[in-house]
Amino acid sequence: MINAITVAVDAMGGDNAPAAIVKGVVDAVNNNECVTVKLVGIKEAVEAELSKYTYDHNRIEVIGATEVIETAEHPVNAIRRKKDSSMVVAMNLVKAGEADAFVSAGSTGAILVGAQAIIGRIPGVKRPPLAPVLPTAKGPLVLVDCGANVDSRPDHLVLYARMGSIYSEYVLGIKNPRVGIANNGAEEEKGNQLVKDTFPLLKECRGINFIGSVETKDIPQGNADVVVCDGFVGNAILKMFEGVGYTLLSEIKHSMLSTFRGKLGALLIKPSLKKVLKKYDATEYGGAPMLGLNGLVVKAHGSSNAKEIKNAVEQCIQFVDADINVKIRDTLTDVN
Amino acid sequence: MINAITVAVDAMGGDNAPAAIVKGVVDAVNNNECVTVKLVGIKEAVEAELSKYTYDHNRIEVIGATEVIETAEHPVNAIRRKKDSSMVVAMNLVKAGEADAFVSAGSTGAILVGAQAIIGRIPGVKRPPLAPVLPTAKGPLVLVDCGANVDSRPDHLVLYARMGSIYSEYVLGIKNPRVGIANNGAEEEKGNQLVKDTFPLLKECRGINFIGSVETKDIPQGNADVVVCDGFVGNAILKMFEGVGYTLLSEIKHSMLSTFRGKLGALLIKPSLKKVLKKYDATEYGGAPMLGLNGLVVKAHGSSNAKEIKNAVEQCIQFVDADINVKIRDTLTDVN
Repeated sequence: MINAITVAVDAMGGDNAPAAIVKGVVDAVNNNECVTVKLVGIKEAVEAELSKYTYDHNRIEVIGATEVIETAEHPVNAIRRKKDSSMVVAMNLVKAGEADAFVSAGSTGAILVGAQAIIGRIPGVKRPPLAPVLPTAKGPLVLVDCGANVDSRPDHLVLYARMGSIYSEYVLGIKNPRVGIANNGAEEEKGNQLVKDTFPLLKECRGINFIGSVETKDIPQGNADVVVCDGFVGNAILKMFEGVGYTLLSEIKHSMLSTFRGKLGALLIKPSLKKVLKKYDATEYGGAPMLGLNGLVVKAHGSSNAKEIKNAVEQCIQFVDADINVKIRDTLTDVN
Repeated sequence: MINAITVAVDAMGGDNAPAAIVKGVVDAVNNNECVTVKLVGIKEAVEAELSKYTYDHNRIEVIGATEVIETAEHPVNAIRRKKDSSMVVAMNLVKAGEADAFVSAGSTGAILVGAQAIIGRIPGVKRPPLAPVLPTAKGPLVLVDCGANVDSRPDHLVLYARMGSIYSEYVLGIKNPRVGIANNGAEEEKGNQLVKDTFPLLKECRGINFIGSVETKDIPQGNADVVVCDGFVGNAILKMFEGVGYTLLSEIKHSMLSTFRGKLGALLIKPSLKKVLKKYDATEYGGAPMLGLNGLVVKAHGSSNAKEIKNAVEQCIQFVDADINVKIRDTLTDVN
């Protein structure tokens, strides 16, 4: 049986807030009896959206916040100054133990700063990474870090490997997950200084199944379950994943629909295409969790629609239920 | 009128050597009256392949080499010790002025080492980059560097920008090409230390049209004509480009062909799909030129087939004809 879980959701973050956020929350609550949501934002705006839907009123509580952090704002200043913003108020609920998890589609920078300043890091985790799941030919692959930290050090990457491995095993259900390091070739002399310094540490690291270098061309094939890298590189990987898929599929669609013959063919291949699109739809896995904090923080895509928010809220269930944070804390204590 | 050009081709490099290399060379020569090829490799093997084809015997000369550099060999040792390898012999032809360009699908590491040691760098170019062309929704995009140099410095990236801009303008025919730097966001505070240090230098750089940060998700959309980055990052970008495209298209194909309805649809959309595949086929642009050397070096994909080798040889025509190396030398002299 799954434990009850309370998720604090930033109703004002993201391009489609609050409408898409509210709808996603309602769908998640209606779909999962164990979920309660504290929906934080400009009260009137949130309630107006909520009034459109039918749901168990005991399981969605609106919590007022008078300010909103915009994407363009300087993250540190925004978190410091906007004490009554939806993001800060929602994070404080996690800090106070009134919520188990925080979900936002708002400014990544502000989430990263706020999560560390307000919710706090697990002792030993100096740089909590963002760890999104990429769909691959062989199943879900965890990419750590996709952009929380740039200019990382070898010990950061070792922690990414250990936390990513726990996440892959206990949230995604992959036994003894294969952990690789993103590299520019498979040969031993390949790699930048960071990879060369990290490689021997990963080789010696107990408790992970290190498989060595992974070239990024093998990521979509799913030749690893966890790939660690500096956040600047991980961001390039994640956004190429999104960008190439988007561009290729729109060009194929455009090209098909430009002739009668193509249109007819498009109609026939629609079910096959849909199956593939669903398999490679990263949003099916929710947002990117930030690993190594004293509470769960999930960063949803800025352009999230209701389905993505629903998936991000549902993602918290398994994460909290599997006690990922306790497992991470235990592993760190065990080794340090 | 296009000037006559002589290309030294490593007949032994790559997964499909010498068969695919020889066929590609024959096709290039038959297709371009201005091209002469010095085909370097194990004489008997190369001549046996050549004997299968009809071509102008005055324009393909076989030059014997008794050794072959394998992909697994240590690059520096291989170039130093195998003086009679197809790669070293062919590069020496460029050094001696007996060929204008060198093409190989062999070991990238050995090409990078050999090109600098034998053919030599243009004064002022400390780290010659590899600059492949990526097909995008809006046309060809030059990515500099895709893996020749890791742990680059800001002045390297500035040179990449200047050389990439010349390449884009004079080889690809793009007027006033938009030069961007790969970054993990568009906001000013984004970037690792390298990007932060390089950004102001690019802003001040005369003679290039710097447009600022480019997120990698915008690369397939073609939101820049030249993108500069450290080679480790560029390698991740290039290989994600190849990997995502390959995986998505094979999954779509597989899914379509698994039902009768899908098979019928596949037949109908074939022409549309082919058009898109051709547009996004990186091999249409040949290999990756190494910029900033005293001669043209083109690295073709290790898995190159005959068509890719033909394109790589043909790519040399425009490069040499546009006097890219002289233009790079002049720009460097002008600024330094």
